Amino acid sequence: MPPEDAFELQPIGVVRSSLRNRSDAPKQAFEGAPEALLELDPAFAPALNGVAAGQELIVLTWFHEADRAVLETHPRDDPAIPLTGVFATRSPDRPNPIGLHRVTVVALETPTLLRVGALEAIDGTPIVDLKIALRAR
Amino acid sequence: MPPEDAFELQPIGVVRSSLRNRSDAPKQAFEGAPEALLELDPAFAPALNGVAAGQELIVLTWFHEADRAVLETHPRDDPAIPLTGVFATRSPDRPNPIGLHRVTVVALETPTLLRVGALEAIDGTPIVDLKIALRAR
Repeated sequence: MPPEDAFELQPIGVVRSSLRNRSDAPKQAFEGAPEALLELDPAFAPALNGVAAGQELIVLTWFHEADRAVLETHPRDDPAIPLTGVFATRSPDRPNPIGLHRVTVVALETPTLLRVGALEAIDGTPIVDLKIALRAR
Repeated sequence: MPPEDAFELQPIGVVRSSLRNRSDAPKQAFEGAPEALLELDPAFAPALNGVAAGQELIVLTWFHEADRAVLETHPRDDPAIPLTGVFATRSPDRPNPIGLHRVTVVALETPTLLRVGALEAIDGTPIVDLKIALRAR
């Protein structure tokens, strides 16, 4: 497809976490990820109206360290698992490296600073969207 | 944040659907959305290695008709519901209008043409990522 069809994604905030690099980060949040802070740009305060402690949110991030040229990978970086297309995995390396994380809101520290439960994204990961979680989606 | 921090999202394919415009589309897939086709760019065929009928996938789309300036909305377009921040909703109108859809793969019509179950995205919606669904994520 022609490059003029590309879309521009603007960061809305950043993850603050004790996880400093990819090798420290668990593959999935339920594998021991720590609490983290979602530091949103104050310009987006109105968009957080209605977000409250106890809710489940979907956080979309931008895996800024991803390799966008990777189309196949060994799942879980395990060479014993056959090469698999990245669209059949959750690898951060993919053509558009958008991260998908389901988190629980623990507290709003300020109107645009959210403390959330287990999140496997590393410190400094840009946030691009938040959505309320629905059922299993 | 400075504009140089923006990220470029490249479409990887497009939704083919009998839904032609936003007013026809149900709000959520489980509200009567039809089957649809995911037409991927053949360049991404290797990234689909491992995708098979019966699997559940997360499809990320780009709501190309969204209004990115909207920060608050009446959920479900119902004026009786108080104005709510878009990050506490699933509104397509939001700063980075990424759509999140959980679908079941019905069949691979060709190596890069996937027939999927109930999908509420309209015909022509760009696809930006596919991921295998994990548990409730």
